[in-house]
Amino acid sequence: MADYMSMDNLKYTFFDVVRCQELLKFDRFKDYDEESFNILLDSIKDWADSALFPYFREMDEKPTYYDDGKIIVHPQIGEIMRYCGENGLIGAYFDYKVGGQQMPHTLQAALSHITQCANNHVTGYPALTAGAANLIIRFGNDELIDKYVPNMVAGQWGGTMCLTEPQAGSSLSDITSSAVPTDEGYYKMTGQKIFISGGDHEYCENFVHLYLARIEGAPSGTKGISLFVVPKYRLSEKGELEPNDVITAGDFQKLGQRGYCTTHLILGENNNCHGWLVGEPNKGLKYMFQMMNGARLDVGMTAVSTATAAYYASLQYAKERPQGRPLTSSGRKDPNQPQTLIINHPDVRRMLLLQKAIIEPSLSLLLYCTKLNDIHENAHGQEREDAHDLLEFLTPIAKTYPSSMGEVAISNGLQVLGGYGYCSEFVLQQYYRDIRIMSLYEGTTGIQSLDLLGRKTTMKNGKAIQLLTKVMTEDIIKARTYNELTPYADKLQGKLKDVGDVLTKLMPFAMKGDYERFLADATIYMEMTSTIVMAWQCLIMATTAKEALVTGQLKFGSAFYESKIHTMKFYFTYELPKTLGMKEVLLNDEVLTIVSEKEVIN
Amino acid sequence: MADYMSMDNLKYTFFDVVRCQELLKFDRFKDYDEESFNILLDSIKDWADSALFPYFREMDEKPTYYDDGKIIVHPQIGEIMRYCGENGLIGAYFDYKVGGQQMPHTLQAALSHITQCANNHVTGYPALTAGAANLIIRFGNDELIDKYVPNMVAGQWGGTMCLTEPQAGSSLSDITSSAVPTDEGYYKMTGQKIFISGGDHEYCENFVHLYLARIEGAPSGTKGISLFVVPKYRLSEKGELEPNDVITAGDFQKLGQRGYCTTHLILGENNNCHGWLVGEPNKGLKYMFQMMNGARLDVGMTAVSTATAAYYASLQYAKERPQGRPLTSSGRKDPNQPQTLIINHPDVRRMLLLQKAIIEPSLSLLLYCTKLNDIHENAHGQEREDAHDLLEFLTPIAKTYPSSMGEVAISNGLQVLGGYGYCSEFVLQQYYRDIRIMSLYEGTTGIQSLDLLGRKTTMKNGKAIQLLTKVMTEDIIKARTYNELTPYADKLQGKLKDVGDVLTKLMPFAMKGDYERFLADATIYMEMTSTIVMAWQCLIMATTAKEALVTGQLKFGSAFYESKIHTMKFYFTYELPKTLGMKEVLLNDEVLTIVSEKEVIN
Repeated sequence: MADYMSMDNLKYTFFDVVRCQELLKFDRFKDYDEESFNILLDSIKDWADSALFPYFREMDEKPTYYDDGKIIVHPQIGEIMRYCGENGLIGAYFDYKVGGQQMPHTLQAALSHITQCANNHVTGYPALTAGAANLIIRFGNDELIDKYVPNMVAGQWGGTMCLTEPQAGSSLSDITSSAVPTDEGYYKMTGQKIFISGGDHEYCENFVHLYLARIEGAPSGTKGISLFVVPKYRLSEKGELEPNDVITAGDFQKLGQRGYCTTHLILGENNNCHGWLVGEPNKGLKYMFQMMNGARLDVGMTAVSTATAAYYASLQYAKERPQGRPLTSSGRKDPNQPQTLIINHPDVRRMLLLQKAIIEPSLSLLLYCTKLNDIHENAHGQEREDAHDLLEFLTPIAKTYPSSMGEVAISNGLQVLGGYGYCSEFVLQQYYRDIRIMSLYEGTTGIQSLDLLGRKTTMKNGKAIQLLTKVMTEDIIKARTYNELTPYADKLQGKLKDVGDVLTKLMPFAMKGDYERFLADATIYMEMTSTIVMAWQCLIMATTAKEALVTGQLKFGSAFYESKIHTMKFYFTYELPKTLGMKEVLLNDEVLTIVSEKEVIN
Repeated sequence: MADYMSMDNLKYTFFDVVRCQELLKFDRFKDYDEESFNILLDSIKDWADSALFPYFREMDEKPTYYDDGKIIVHPQIGEIMRYCGENGLIGAYFDYKVGGQQMPHTLQAALSHITQCANNHVTGYPALTAGAANLIIRFGNDELIDKYVPNMVAGQWGGTMCLTEPQAGSSLSDITSSAVPTDEGYYKMTGQKIFISGGDHEYCENFVHLYLARIEGAPSGTKGISLFVVPKYRLSEKGELEPNDVITAGDFQKLGQRGYCTTHLILGENNNCHGWLVGEPNKGLKYMFQMMNGARLDVGMTAVSTATAAYYASLQYAKERPQGRPLTSSGRKDPNQPQTLIINHPDVRRMLLLQKAIIEPSLSLLLYCTKLNDIHENAHGQEREDAHDLLEFLTPIAKTYPSSMGEVAISNGLQVLGGYGYCSEFVLQQYYRDIRIMSLYEGTTGIQSLDLLGRKTTMKNGKAIQLLTKVMTEDIIKARTYNELTPYADKLQGKLKDVGDVLTKLMPFAMKGDYERFLADATIYMEMTSTIVMAWQCLIMATTAKEALVTGQLKFGSAFYESKIHTMKFYFTYELPKTLGMKEVLLNDEVLTIVSEKEVIN
């Protein structure tokens, strides 16, 4: 089988770089230890090898489709839901008391990395079921929990998140789905939702939609949105499943992720759709957004996983394909020499290193963020608050960078294969199509960038970014322990100052209420900060590797560690300089993207 | 019908910016005038509206395919070949004496822009037929010309260029197709070729392959390659078509351009394939490369055309789709206000302007290059030589920038549509797939970059780049006529100095024979120079627009001209600063992509 990921790289990042085993100090995880982490990682890899990766191409070639009120998905989806349910993977991070395994989010994220690398089309089915069940557990009453969660955790019922409506798109304040209270305790639901991932198929006997709607008479805007459980089939008084007037109206056909259905749902066409309020009225969006960090990190992880699988596919090709010859000192090539492998051509090496320099720090940042999430949920006092603030700031970056730069990485992976990369026979073109959705899922790049600059940078008077600067400075100091790393550590420190300069320029616009100007280049600010954050992750990875080389405590062979240092150097040499241009854009006084009297776009 | 291009923009670029009507001074074009240029442009637009654009989606949804030795293409291909043949479009730039129209290359390129915008899947069929016929005309003897060219010009026979072999890829020195001379004047051909665009279908009665092969005993490497005409059917003594042992073995299925077949050919399986030498033995690659500039410019034009069509599709969506609201001075949005059109959001405007700032200078550069080609073919003395040298330097840029940055442009166009952009129902995802091949066609980006730095920059002791600097400086001086443009003109001049600094750093490596180091970052050098060249094109477009505004000689309404100036400002503010980072990469002393003893890519 083709390598679609590196377990060495995952374990190095998980244990040595991010040190996720530090989470074992929390009482919640007392049944875990390093060995059980390793066993779980290895067993999921075995499962992914046999149950996920072999179906990856086929799911693309035979996409999900809509047929007469039903969505047809690949039969392996049934097997996957069954396995995840039986092995406790759906409710892995839930409490024992609701059938969970109290697994750290970080371990679950590492397991997801493996399964997403193997097949990014299928992991959303169990993951969204878990997300929906978790919303019920956290904000629903005991009756809702008892009624829905056990079947969801068992993988027999699927779950979804229903946010987007056709007329509203990203603008959730314009949701018009409606809920009318009845005397029987339920609400009568009407409305429609689009882009509902994993919204219907024949391998779950029911679907539990976590659904945003307005209760009749609720305030306008986001403050009038409530959260409901709306099952496809509701339980009759006899405890039997009966139709709940939820119609599956279509399956959006997509550029990629074609094994993952994208449903169009219509509720209450026959005035017979029942929904049950979750938590209090008008707090739906607040509840949903408490899950949003996790959902965004999961998109970031799917992006880096997709780009990781693409990297290993292109690396394998580069190591096997002979073509061309090295240049001689005359500047010519000797046609009588045998061909060389393309991995030996500098430009091919550059494209491979670029991919590596995008995926490796991205994986590291994502595991770091999920670790912060675990700390936030389990620690107390300052540790908890700091974890929260750092996580808030880093989440939009951890979602966006792997999505947008993952696209660049995969395009380079495709390019490594030359013309073959463009052919359907080779897998690169599939990864290229698959990853493109990551910049759209769970808030587009534009929305993530507004969040990063407009909310996360300014929150608590800039506390998060100060905290991040402190953490980064500690890592810079640590890197300076080694002469080889000092120039890079210094470079990173200079970049921190650049971010300060940019904020000194931008913050006054916010202070005087010119938010449009303040936020106009938020996407460039996202590019700049995320490029610097990834440099920081590269530096940590290199410092950890250097430490291992110096102390001789090598788990993986010295070439592995040398490669980490080399990748960091590549990132600092080829990628980090890009912030020079971004800084110039952000410091520029020209205003070119805000509507003025003359329309200049034609 | 949806707008897939702007005739105003094309005519502005063609007549006002590049001043293609200056070519009318040459005797060869004496039957043309500005009016006939305009009539031809308009009539091709009408044809593209009715015969090309309506089939664009369908050709993607029902791709070409291989069936039992045949390739099945869309029936409209037959109509297109017929129309192009009957209306003299295939041999448009050929001499009258071989059935051509002596049309300037530049006008043909402008016509191609229209047809490629309408449907990038189909224009290769007539264009490659023309390219193949032109090779015969330029290097073949009268017998070959008489036998093949008339049917090709008439669109009854298709033509192809057969370079790539499975084991050789881009490394043409490893071609193994073989030609054994016979006493009858023809050669016995054996071998196979892959990736042969437009290589077979039922709407041409014959295919004329311009085929690279080695004559038995020829020297190794590129110096032993000869060019042959190998028809699918050869003419019997009675003048009838009889099979020539050319087998169509497959049609590569691709990520995009799925209406354009990509053929696998096998010759001489039954030892009965005849080929006829074109020109002298062992000069095949030289002949082929004399056509290569034109082929590369055509790829660049197809790239910019594809990105142009994508831009207008995303612009139309942005002008029609209401979503969200502007920020108020409190930083919040008022949900009771009606939604705004998404074109009014700064980040959407940024994505639209970015597309515009990529496609408009690209079109301008491509028309400028084809104009240089016309000048080179028609002028004498210094004018001719300068045109040649400039064209040599600019061709790899004009091929590469629209291909790689066109990919970025279309990705932004897709992003404008949000989730809909990812759906098959909308066209953006098709453009996104289509354009990806442009960085692979006719020499990958890596190969173009080696050509730019390794050959074109160093040729004649750097004469081309000195000449380009001179031409650019003249345009900088002209821009400084206007206060509004002066700061941008100054910025561009600074960038010219940066290129000088980079070459001062790199040239010594070439001089001491360390070509691998000299060329290791050729792709970054390509990025840097092409980013600057496009800034120059933007500046010319803006200067021309300013001139029109100041003199009041407005053909298109003032908003059109303001938009050109605005697009230039956008390019200088958001795109040009990227060269800062590229320069830092190129001046860096670290060597990270050349093979060393330790393998650091794993």
